[in-house]
Amino acid sequence: MDDLRITLEEFKKGNINEDEVILRLKKKPFVDIGYASFDSHRSILQGNTEVIYGAGKTAEQIIGIVRTMLLNDEKHILITRLDDEKAKALVNESYLCDVTKYYPEARLAVVGGFKPCDTEGYIAIVTAGTSDIPVAEEAAITAEFLGNKVERIYDVGVAGLHRLLSHLDKIMAADVIIAIAGMEGALASVVGGLASCPVIAVPTSVGYGASFEGLSALLSMLNSCASGVSVVNIDNGFGAAYQAGMINHKRG
Amino acid sequence: MDDLRITLEEFKKGNINEDEVILRLKKKPFVDIGYASFDSHRSILQGNTEVIYGAGKTAEQIIGIVRTMLLNDEKHILITRLDDEKAKALVNESYLCDVTKYYPEARLAVVGGFKPCDTEGYIAIVTAGTSDIPVAEEAAITAEFLGNKVERIYDVGVAGLHRLLSHLDKIMAADVIIAIAGMEGALASVVGGLASCPVIAVPTSVGYGASFEGLSALLSMLNSCASGVSVVNIDNGFGAAYQAGMINHKRG
Amino acid sequence: MDDLRITLEEFKKGNINEDEVILRLKKKPFVDIGYASFDSHRSILQGNTEVIYGAGKTAEQIIGIVRTMLLNDEKHILITRLDDEKAKALVNESYLCDVTKYYPEARLAVVGGFKPCDTEGYIAIVTAGTSDIPVAEEAAITAEFLGNKVERIYDVGVAGLHRLLSHLDKIMAADVIIAIAGMEGALASVVGGLASCPVIAVPTSVGYGASFEGLSALLSMLNSCASGVSVVNIDNGFGAAYQAGMINHKRG
Amino acid sequence: MDDLRITLEEFKKGNINEDEVILRLKKKPFVDIGYASFDSHRSILQGNTEVIYGAGKTAEQIIGIVRTMLLNDEKHILITRLDDEKAKALVNESYLCDVTKYYPEARLAVVGGFKPCDTEGYIAIVTAGTSDIPVAEEAAITAEFLGNKVERIYDVGVAGLHRLLSHLDKIMAADVIIAIAGMEGALASVVGGLASCPVIAVPTSVGYGASFEGLSALLSMLNSCASGVSVVNIDNGFGAAYQAGMINHKRG
Amino acid sequence: MDDLRITLEEFKKGNINEDEVILRLKKKPFVDIGYASFDSHRSILQGNTEVIYGAGKTAEQIIGIVRTMLLNDEKHILITRLDDEKAKALVNESYLCDVTKYYPEARLAVVGGFKPCDTEGYIAIVTAGTSDIPVAEEAAITAEFLGNKVERIYDVGVAGLHRLLSHLDKIMAADVIIAIAGMEGALASVVGGLASCPVIAVPTSVGYGASFEGLSALLSMLNSCASGVSVVNIDNGFGAAYQAGMINHKRG
Amino acid sequence: MDDLRITLEEFKKGNINEDEVILRLKKKPFVDIGYASFDSHRSILQGNTEVIYGAGKTAEQIIGIVRTMLLNDEKHILITRLDDEKAKALVNESYLCDVTKYYPEARLAVVGGFKPCDTEGYIAIVTAGTSDIPVAEEAAITAEFLGNKVERIYDVGVAGLHRLLSHLDKIMAADVIIAIAGMEGALASVVGGLASCPVIAVPTSVGYGASFEGLSALLSMLNSCASGVSVVNIDNGFGAAYQAGMINHKRG
Amino acid sequence: MDDLRITLEEFKKGNINEDEVILRLKKKPFVDIGYASFDSHRSILQGNTEVIYGAGKTAEQIIGIVRTMLLNDEKHILITRLDDEKAKALVNESYLCDVTKYYPEARLAVVGGFKPCDTEGYIAIVTAGTSDIPVAEEAAITAEFLGNKVERIYDVGVAGLHRLLSHLDKIMAADVIIAIAGMEGALASVVGGLASCPVIAVPTSVGYGASFEGLSALLSMLNSCASGVSVVNIDNGFGAAYQAGMINHKRG
Amino acid sequence: MDDLRITLEEFKKGNINEDEVILRLKKKPFVDIGYASFDSHRSILQGNTEVIYGAGKTAEQIIGIVRTMLLNDEKHILITRLDDEKAKALVNESYLCDVTKYYPEARLAVVGGFKPCDTEGYIAIVTAGTSDIPVAEEAAITAEFLGNKVERIYDVGVAGLHRLLSHLDKIMAADVIIAIAGMEGALASVVGGLASCPVIAVPTSVGYGASFEGLSALLSMLNSCASGVSVVNIDNGFGAAYQAGMINHKRG
Repeated sequence: MDDLRITLEEFKKGNINEDEVILRLKKKPFVDIGYASFDSHRSILQGNTEVIYGAGKTAEQIIGIVRTMLLNDEKHILITRLDDEKAKALVNESYLCDVTKYYPEARLAVVGGFKPCDTEGYIAIVTAGTSDIPVAEEAAITAEFLGNKVERIYDVGVAGLHRLLSHLDKIMAADVIIAIAGMEGALASVVGGLASCPVIAVPTSVGYGASFEGLSALLSMLNSCASGVSVVNIDNGFGAAYQAGMINHKRG
Repeated sequence: MDDLRITLEEFKKGNINEDEVILRLKKKPFVDIGYASFDSHRSILQGNTEVIYGAGKTAEQIIGIVRTMLLNDEKHILITRLDDEKAKALVNESYLCDVTKYYPEARLAVVGGFKPCDTEGYIAIVTAGTSDIPVAEEAAITAEFLGNKVERIYDVGVAGLHRLLSHLDKIMAADVIIAIAGMEGALASVVGGLASCPVIAVPTSVGYGASFEGLSALLSMLNSCASGVSVVNIDNGFGAAYQAGMINHKRG
Repeated sequence: MDDLRITLEEFKKGNINEDEVILRLKKKPFVDIGYASFDSHRSILQGNTEVIYGAGKTAEQIIGIVRTMLLNDEKHILITRLDDEKAKALVNESYLCDVTKYYPEARLAVVGGFKPCDTEGYIAIVTAGTSDIPVAEEAAITAEFLGNKVERIYDVGVAGLHRLLSHLDKIMAADVIIAIAGMEGALASVVGGLASCPVIAVPTSVGYGASFEGLSALLSMLNSCASGVSVVNIDNGFGAAYQAGMINHKRG
Repeated sequence: MDDLRITLEEFKKGNINEDEVILRLKKKPFVDIGYASFDSHRSILQGNTEVIYGAGKTAEQIIGIVRTMLLNDEKHILITRLDDEKAKALVNESYLCDVTKYYPEARLAVVGGFKPCDTEGYIAIVTAGTSDIPVAEEAAITAEFLGNKVERIYDVGVAGLHRLLSHLDKIMAADVIIAIAGMEGALASVVGGLASCPVIAVPTSVGYGASFEGLSALLSMLNSCASGVSVVNIDNGFGAAYQAGMINHKRG
Repeated sequence: MDDLRITLEEFKKGNINEDEVILRLKKKPFVDIGYASFDSHRSILQGNTEVIYGAGKTAEQIIGIVRTMLLNDEKHILITRLDDEKAKALVNESYLCDVTKYYPEARLAVVGGFKPCDTEGYIAIVTAGTSDIPVAEEAAITAEFLGNKVERIYDVGVAGLHRLLSHLDKIMAADVIIAIAGMEGALASVVGGLASCPVIAVPTSVGYGASFEGLSALLSMLNSCASGVSVVNIDNGFGAAYQAGMINHKRG
Repeated sequence: MDDLRITLEEFKKGNINEDEVILRLKKKPFVDIGYASFDSHRSILQGNTEVIYGAGKTAEQIIGIVRTMLLNDEKHILITRLDDEKAKALVNESYLCDVTKYYPEARLAVVGGFKPCDTEGYIAIVTAGTSDIPVAEEAAITAEFLGNKVERIYDVGVAGLHRLLSHLDKIMAADVIIAIAGMEGALASVVGGLASCPVIAVPTSVGYGASFEGLSALLSMLNSCASGVSVVNIDNGFGAAYQAGMINHKRG
Repeated sequence: MDDLRITLEEFKKGNINEDEVILRLKKKPFVDIGYASFDSHRSILQGNTEVIYGAGKTAEQIIGIVRTMLLNDEKHILITRLDDEKAKALVNESYLCDVTKYYPEARLAVVGGFKPCDTEGYIAIVTAGTSDIPVAEEAAITAEFLGNKVERIYDVGVAGLHRLLSHLDKIMAADVIIAIAGMEGALASVVGGLASCPVIAVPTSVGYGASFEGLSALLSMLNSCASGVSVVNIDNGFGAAYQAGMINHKRG
Repeated sequence: MDDLRITLEEFKKGNINEDEVILRLKKKPFVDIGYASFDSHRSILQGNTEVIYGAGKTAEQIIGIVRTMLLNDEKHILITRLDDEKAKALVNESYLCDVTKYYPEARLAVVGGFKPCDTEGYIAIVTAGTSDIPVAEEAAITAEFLGNKVERIYDVGVAGLHRLLSHLDKIMAADVIIAIAGMEGALASVVGGLASCPVIAVPTSVGYGASFEGLSALLSMLNSCASGVSVVNIDNGFGAAYQAGMINHKRG
């Protein structure tokens, strides 16, 4: 309110006119509160990490953004949804080649390496089949990039329950679990029933026919009979890892 | 077919004449001798059982059909999708009250009792939750009506895997399994992975929100990662039991 | 697990014999000692709390389950998706009336009071409109029952952004946020953009026409352009609060 | 209508005879004078502008139509949904090369330049992400072609609310706003809440998984909690600009 | 904004002091002076009108809100989606009975009468059938409430084209058109082709079978082959009228 | 065009001015052609029959329309989608009671009796089950009302193929067939394969679960592998009969 | 029944045994009735015409089928859904090149020319846009092949109503109309309202976004407010023409 | 329980400590029951057969898995969803070329030949059209691989009922039937009505437009009016054959 009093005083003195008073009033709530605060907030959380969504951007655009970020002292940059061609352009850029690593299966590139791992707990990433691994790797590299320890438990779909159960220890001791499955997506419910930590479920577009590009797995996971399961978009390994990282970094 | 063979023998012996043969054939359910062929075929399988789909029929219509069937020597009649009111009318009918039993949870009535059980194997009926029990009972009574032995294994959803696993023996020894689940329908895949017999999955309309009245469970079951699983319509306990009975009665 | 350790000690000391050990293990909820393992795990987490899903159960069934739980020393019991009639029957039960409280808006009842709040952080529950409040209260009471501190921020839909922004401090300081909205569900994205903690989004069936009973909000939330947002089933306030409680209780 | 009045005057003076009047009327695009009425109506609005929908037409067909239009004295022609190959054919046509400009990002070509801008107000075109820009440019060029002033405000998605709010002045002063977003489409609601002018929302097919090719954004926008928002088809930048132009040109 | 200017002038003249200015600003609907900015913006447009969405609010809640609004000097209040019972409670309230009018077909009530009509142009509201009239009346009363002149053209569906064409003059001279239709929603395209002003299409839930509660009409309208047509939610007569009012009040 | 010449002559003589000419030209195409011509056309076809769609109209409205029609010399009036209550009001109307007949199963009423049957051919109406009969009767009475001879062939679903085949003669000799089925709608394809006349398929909302209120039957029928099958809306017995009547009355 | 008597006599004489009797009874209804009758029926209708569905068949398979048909004295053969490559193979076949004509736009080939036109009436084929023409040509060539006279009325979508109305005479005089449209499919309703003959509507997959590959047009046409309209599958020009041909050939 | 007694004894003797006991107890249910038992179970059923799902695996991965299996004494290996390229790599592998056969139409390869046929009954595989044959061959080869006798009955869609009926004997004598159809999927119902054995229905993605990639056939089959029909995923010939094999091998 102090600003308001100052404004009114200036107005009374004739330093500013009526229109200027009204304009300031209009812009006040957004300008004051809106900006700075939550942006600085965010970067504190992430420890100078930045993420670029690569889909729909040209290699040139991506390189330009990376350059700007580096100039602004971002130390760790993750680029998602890259294809081989764009990745090649990125890695061939003279000032980037030494600090950039491309993960083709995960369709990710990292500039400046991972943020140092700073938690004791770990994120377990569990997949139903081998076809779910690209999504799982997107999640795994993202989580590692954000300073998390990751346990990969792949190809343990519920039709071969013994394979899943042979990893029971790792599942039970995890701090967060990312459960990744296509087809009927039953993995999320079974893992959710076994675990006592939050489970983030990622439906994948793996399957055919009535899987409808991941819709079947998505609906399954949303309707999970296990408590403690939430869901992200189809094939969204990045999003699951991002939230899992937030949870894993939570201080008690 | 036995009746037909007897008729033909009597005809050969001269006990009855040609017109009588034709008359008897005509009295078979579908009026014309020709069409009776595969219907008698069916009754061989089922041992003089008949099924009436009760939904969309009035109590009067149902009673009328039952009367005709009894006059035609059907000994065991099943009426499905009955509500309390129609069932009451049925049971109150003087000549039916002694031979009719109503199963309100299963919304079924049986006239003339079950067909005698004539198989060694059994059908295991497994449900994910207690809310799936009405559909399970429709399946169970139908299967028993058709002369099958039934094992009920209820409320063993995959979120509490240990409960399901504690029935592992019964599941592994079954001749056919009917897996019934709403919500995410994961039960079918887990049971399908454990069992070595055919699994018929029944999605139920149990759930809310994105279960979309059973669609979620239906898609899950169709996309099951376990081999040996097939699916019937949402809430179709009768259909699952009918096919399960066919399989259970199969001679090697 | 403490009981188990005591039993083993007594066994080692010779106070009880092998058969007695096995008998005691069997009496654990799920018959076989083995299966008890992860269930005891769970109860450690939740501090002797239990949840009963009330939909599709009769008042008698619910009362019976509550009785058994009390006999088994569960101290805090939550019953969800209750209607007024069942709640009345519950509250009228002589041995329950003093320890049971019904929350009609949230359709919940609690037996034995809330688990003591044992975290410093809080869960912010944010709704877009007043019609979303029943779902929000289901989440809020559930979270409080599970020992969480809750901040209610209701009716701050994005069409009146200033209302939402006036709560910016509470949103930014939360440990977990539950964002609840029907119609277009835009709240989740805006809150997700403002917050630096995990956001669990709950689509509600509020709306009409092309909201398709919550489908519109569900799809919106799954496609949120904000990172760190995951989603539960339509109207699933309980599920969101359960996972939020897990996150809020996480030790760093 | 001016042509008609001239024709009638010439007829009255005896310069042309009755048949000639009728012939001229017939030669108007739609054979009978009657039908011309609302077409001329339209051209009054648009100031001799014409639009060709390029999709599903060959380069030859498009060139043919343009030629005919030029012969009929249309001065400004817009061709939408062009690809590079057809555009090249168009621009290479000898009598078109000097007067034709191709906008590859917007997939538009303009023959004869834009209609002069004749309004004081402006249309603000706001996009959530950079991937929405092709649709936005289709809208922007269309609006400019139709004689409107356009303000481009791109990449201001609601997950970074401060970016949107930094353009608050331009949004609040606009005469019409076109809000373009894929994924969850929340932009339309937030902009609708901030603005006091009509907002036309354009869902885009940007996104993946449960965005279902723009369905998610479409449903969001239809269910917007903000008043004053209407919606056009997915990716229909042209349609939004056409209606926005109508509104912007409205005389009070 | 006029109130604000008066306040500032009084302040400058010394009639009121700084604290009084701040107090007056606080009494604006949204408590804090800052947030009032664009709300006052809105009221300029609407001339002291306010709208209450009645669905999901109790009669008591609605009456309470109305009371607060009247105390805050809102002169014209519209309440939408009212049913008979709530309307009766409203009209029976002693201090409201003289100033409140209920429109049962449109499910609207108006407190304090319509805002005076202040435009020369008019909004044409066109419906395909008689069953669409409740939605049309919601639009019509809303538009009149907001100070617009309205032309009602009802029951002119495209299967009887001559009925529609007999209103050609009114359609062609309108400033904005609201086209309302259920079933196949073809009206929007035909009207859009005839008119040279913006057309806002409202799909209705009128129909059966494959109309899927308005989905058929909604899709039709979104895919309209006529330019200049935008769409609002199914049955959203209010929303269409609100935007139409914005357009109709636009100064050139 | 003669009117145009007259107008031009009058204009040349100075009897009318330029504006009048333009006004006449504008109104000409729609007013002149629009009305009389195709309406009289229609009534020739139908022999003074009229149809009122009863759904969404009050009894009073229907009675009013009937009265007007009778005054206009319509001799045969059909009212569709009537419920018992409205029908009672209609039949109790003094001047209607003698000439009105209500068909409750078909939800139709007829005023003034059927149009005399004036064709040699007949329409076969075939249903899969007994639950489809209300839709079939709507079709049958409508067809009879419009002067057609009808053959009813009910309850001949494809699961009992012999029942259908026993009516082969009637099916093969029909002039048009209306095939009515819910559930999987296979009847249309089988009948389409047997018949050599046009088959109009009517999906019904009979079924449950994955029949999705008739959607399953609708899709089946649209995808029929038999040539010569077209489809109308779910439960639209009237529409099928109306088109069948057109075909049956066609003169060679 | 005569066959049955003969069988029984043979049985009595000992010429055949019991099993043979039963087999004959089983096969009777289908063998007797099933075959010959309706097949010869069909060819009478079509005048020695045959249709081959080309999709999913190799050029070799198609040529093989054609050869067989020619050997069986089929004089007129239509092959649908051909692509250029297969058509080329067909036309290059030595004994086919002289008698085969390929229609690339319609993706049809005709061997042996059209069946002579043998009706006075004609089928009007009306399209909304130029993009609908391939489907229209499939319908037109099919209809001509089947001996019908065809009137093509293309590109008369309802957004330019005057273009449609300029063909009013041809539409009103048609014996059957095929109305073909994508996008919002409004053409079917408008034409259905103008015509007094049966209208067969063909939705096309023309459009984008919320047209959902023809779903929008399909739903529109099924919900047409005009009586006398039925619908075939999306893009099914052949099916519409086949049924239209049946209707056009109907003798009164 | 014997393991448990041994553990307790070891504990009493001090060979293992308390923590080790608890760990063993935790792991017991899953380790003991989980693994060996049901896996050996499965291989007994299948007679040393193994199946590899080829989709989403590289040729190298598949060859690697095959090698491992051969080393583990699997004698019969089936690889599904192979394309030509991968199959070529497989067949060219030196140690595989003599024992591997590729079935291109079925997209299957078999290593080590079929398991010997060991049942008297046979599986009838029935298809509606020739386009369904690839799915049918996937089913047929799978069934033969698993030691079943197969009857192929192809191209007997219900629109030509006589073709289907000419195979009545084979259909009536089958032990299991696999009914394969795209488009409207009516075949399953008709076959289900004729047969007295279990029918497994396979919808195929054959069709266009409103077949929605197999959805139409899928819904049809789920809603079949014939009892004894269950359904697998679209195009899932393998799954149907797998379950059919289970049924065919069932001992009475």
